[in-house]
Amino acid sequence: MLKKKSKIKKKSELGIAAEKDEFSEWYTQAIIKADLVDYSPVSGCMIFKPFGYKIWEIIKQETDKKFKNIGIKNVYFPLFIPESLLKKETTHLKGFSPEVAWVTEAGNTKLQERLAIRPTSEAIMYASYSKWIRSWRDLPLKYNQWNNVVRWEFKHPIPFLRTREFLWNEGHTVFATKKEALKEEKQILEIYNDILRDYMAIAGFISKKTESEKFAGAEFTKAIECLLPNGRVVQGPDFHHDSQIFSKAFNIQFLNKQGKKEYAWQNTWAITTRIIGIMLAIHGDNKGLIIPPKVAPIQIVIIPIFKTQDKPKVLKKAKELKNKLNKFRILLDEREDYTPGYKFHDWEMKGIPIRIEIGPKDIEKNQVIIVRRDKGEKETVKIKNIDNKIPKILDDIQKNLLKISESMLKKGTTTAKNMLELIKAIKNKKLVISEWCGNKKCEDWIKTKIKGAKIIGINEQDKAKGKCVYCGENSQYVVYIAKSY
Amino acid sequence: MLKKKSKIKKKSELGIAAEKDEFSEWYTQAIIKADLVDYSPVSGCMIFKPFGYKIWEIIKQETDKKFKNIGIKNVYFPLFIPESLLKKETTHLKGFSPEVAWVTEAGNTKLQERLAIRPTSEAIMYASYSKWIRSWRDLPLKYNQWNNVVRWEFKHPIPFLRTREFLWNEGHTVFATKKEALKEEKQILEIYNDILRDYMAIAGFISKKTESEKFAGAEFTKAIECLLPNGRVVQGPDFHHDSQIFSKAFNIQFLNKQGKKEYAWQNTWAITTRIIGIMLAIHGDNKGLIIPPKVAPIQIVIIPIFKTQDKPKVLKKAKELKNKLNKFRILLDEREDYTPGYKFHDWEMKGIPIRIEIGPKDIEKNQVIIVRRDKGEKETVKIKNIDNKIPKILDDIQKNLLKISESMLKKGTTTAKNMLELIKAIKNKKLVISEWCGNKKCEDWIKTKIKGAKIIGINEQDKAKGKCVYCGENSQYVVYIAKSY
Repeated sequence: MLKKKSKIKKKSELGIAAEKDEFSEWYTQAIIKADLVDYSPVSGCMIFKPFGYKIWEIIKQETDKKFKNIGIKNVYFPLFIPESLLKKETTHLKGFSPEVAWVTEAGNTKLQERLAIRPTSEAIMYASYSKWIRSWRDLPLKYNQWNNVVRWEFKHPIPFLRTREFLWNEGHTVFATKKEALKEEKQILEIYNDILRDYMAIAGFISKKTESEKFAGAEFTKAIECLLPNGRVVQGPDFHHDSQIFSKAFNIQFLNKQGKKEYAWQNTWAITTRIIGIMLAIHGDNKGLIIPPKVAPIQIVIIPIFKTQDKPKVLKKAKELKNKLNKFRILLDEREDYTPGYKFHDWEMKGIPIRIEIGPKDIEKNQVIIVRRDKGEKETVKIKNIDNKIPKILDDIQKNLLKISESMLKKGTTTAKNMLELIKAIKNKKLVISEWCGNKKCEDWIKTKIKGAKIIGINEQDKAKGKCVYCGENSQYVVYIAKSY
Repeated sequence: MLKKKSKIKKKSELGIAAEKDEFSEWYTQAIIKADLVDYSPVSGCMIFKPFGYKIWEIIKQETDKKFKNIGIKNVYFPLFIPESLLKKETTHLKGFSPEVAWVTEAGNTKLQERLAIRPTSEAIMYASYSKWIRSWRDLPLKYNQWNNVVRWEFKHPIPFLRTREFLWNEGHTVFATKKEALKEEKQILEIYNDILRDYMAIAGFISKKTESEKFAGAEFTKAIECLLPNGRVVQGPDFHHDSQIFSKAFNIQFLNKQGKKEYAWQNTWAITTRIIGIMLAIHGDNKGLIIPPKVAPIQIVIIPIFKTQDKPKVLKKAKELKNKLNKFRILLDEREDYTPGYKFHDWEMKGIPIRIEIGPKDIEKNQVIIVRRDKGEKETVKIKNIDNKIPKILDDIQKNLLKISESMLKKGTTTAKNMLELIKAIKNKKLVISEWCGNKKCEDWIKTKIKGAKIIGINEQDKAKGKCVYCGENSQYVVYIAKSY
């Protein structure tokens, strides 16, 4: 039996040190039981099974549409990055080299130079950008790729949330001016936020990373952060403004309208398959997953209920119903040898938004029973009204799930003015809003004093007006503090 | 200046040994000039630029739809295959190990076991299949993935046609009986053939590979083969029936309806980005590429023609026209500082199917000029009729290109009864239909006697009734012989 919310409260009383709480167990079990993923023979890499991969296909398709609407074009660059290229931007190299998987041999030949499996593609892309970009006419250049990347994590892997290979988009854009580059920040974060809120029913919050947490090679990093039910914060999609850091390292220069050479301004941004894990973690319950309708591989499942003599009649009607609703992602569960009860349980575990039950008595009355996965509510609906009814229910489930996520975030957030309050809040698995003087020493001390916690990022909306939560000096920033994955 | 057909004839007189003919030069130049791809800093790997990648996106989308229609589901398996797994099926290992790129280090750690970058995913997928498949209820299992693979070729790379990393689909299906598995052959080859004929305007021919040419680990391999203008044959999409070879190596067993354990029957099949190269090679001319409308990233380009005083009026009308035709993939070339002549040339080089010219005089007469890329024909069309006209022209171009490909294949094919005829035919850059006794020695001798040529495969439609082209003994098969990439 899966257990999520009931036990989490109990567990929180045990204190903050527990790495493997009931939530983690719930999460892994729920995902495996729902047949979304499986472990693979390669340690730290997971297999996307059809049900899990379909969610990514939908997210990818919807995000890609939005990218194309703002003029982003897709490309594909090689998987390999020669070591010499990766070394061109030193901060970038330092940030990634502990996690790089290296190809050193091909066939029976030792390679002259090691090749990195891309942990991210700045180095390989910008070497070409420097050739392609000549004049202001070539700008802006707005390219993106959907691909696989490898970061050889040495921590315990968690499906979706921490894997050595993952799938993502990486946008790499180049502009003639800093101003233009900064304008893109709003566009991209809006697209990601829309995907999270409108499709995945995830209410996140945007934070700006501190200097020590920003992307290796960026001037600044902003991310949509998400709070999980166990009080841990996971970084969702992010946006990096790279200023001229990479353009100087890779010599990406253009002739401006006055015929003078200038270094270009760059951004990069990404959403990864990790976001699926975040969504599933937020929306499940003790029965298993709850998948928001807009990204659910199956939105409606029809369960026919019959005794042997009614079988042909019920199946016929169920098929008619399926055809009637075929503009939705719909499945008729015709499996034999399984009871309706087993099927109810099975699809609840998989988090399918709507279940339709149809039996001989329903057919007599020209009705069906509709059960919502999110609230568990049952409703009898006339078949003639079903075309109208279904979109309304799906929409309502979608909105309800977003509300749940919003309220979880709100309830899960508190404030702390000093270390005593902070330690207590983190113990209670909260996301904490505090203030910080901006001194790296205080940031480091917070990490040391509360194992696993850190300054997630800066809250740019609110103005600092109090004291640093660690040193008590005047603060410079309002910050989010929490444990993180 | 690009040269394709004119020079090819001349070159063929020089004989069959010439590896780098004008065609190869034309091909590489045409593709680079059309801005489809670029060379990368990783030798043998190419970059898909937006225009080139878009073609793949369209092919992928249309093929994937067809896969889904026959119940194929997409998955994603890890990029890495542990060496021990790759060794499980020995023929498979032997076939691929000379081309495998190996990861041996991660971060600063030497890995305990080498990891292959997937050259194909049988080994990693079937290890899981053996866990997942338990009973006849789990069958058929029809999974596919769209991904990148690496085969470390040591031959000279050619964009699309021969690269160390390429993109593809790999379908891996499992059935309870051989009969069911064999039924899938027709379905899959039909899908691939439809994509080639209806979308890419490629007329290929299906051949069954000989024992020495079949996929490493398959019982048999069939492929759609394509003839290039230089007389070389390139293997297009393929289908492999694996019988129980892998299921025995990976222990993929299921309980049949009688409760008895049986080994499962398997197929694998693939279409790769190489097919784009084939299409471009078949359809270009001395002006550059010609891209079939159904896969063209841009189907129509509008070129406004004006003197300065007419600019606002012409651009306004051109934009109206673009909006009117926005259900097509259409582009209005508003670039300044370029003459219409330059633009004509540029889009011809890129192979855009339709060019629309609009100037002040056309506007007065409520008309435009439409130019077809395939035939170069110009036509004046009233703006009010354009919605009707455009789909007809696109359709006609699509059909015309397929006819051209069919006629090239027909004209490029000849027969040979003995080695003298065969050598002459290959010299003339022909695809040759011959007969073969089935003896591997004769197959090898053909390779030895005519450098670069080989038995492409067996023609299963026609019945052998003559003598082996090499040894003169009674023949067993009608075969295709040609030079290949």
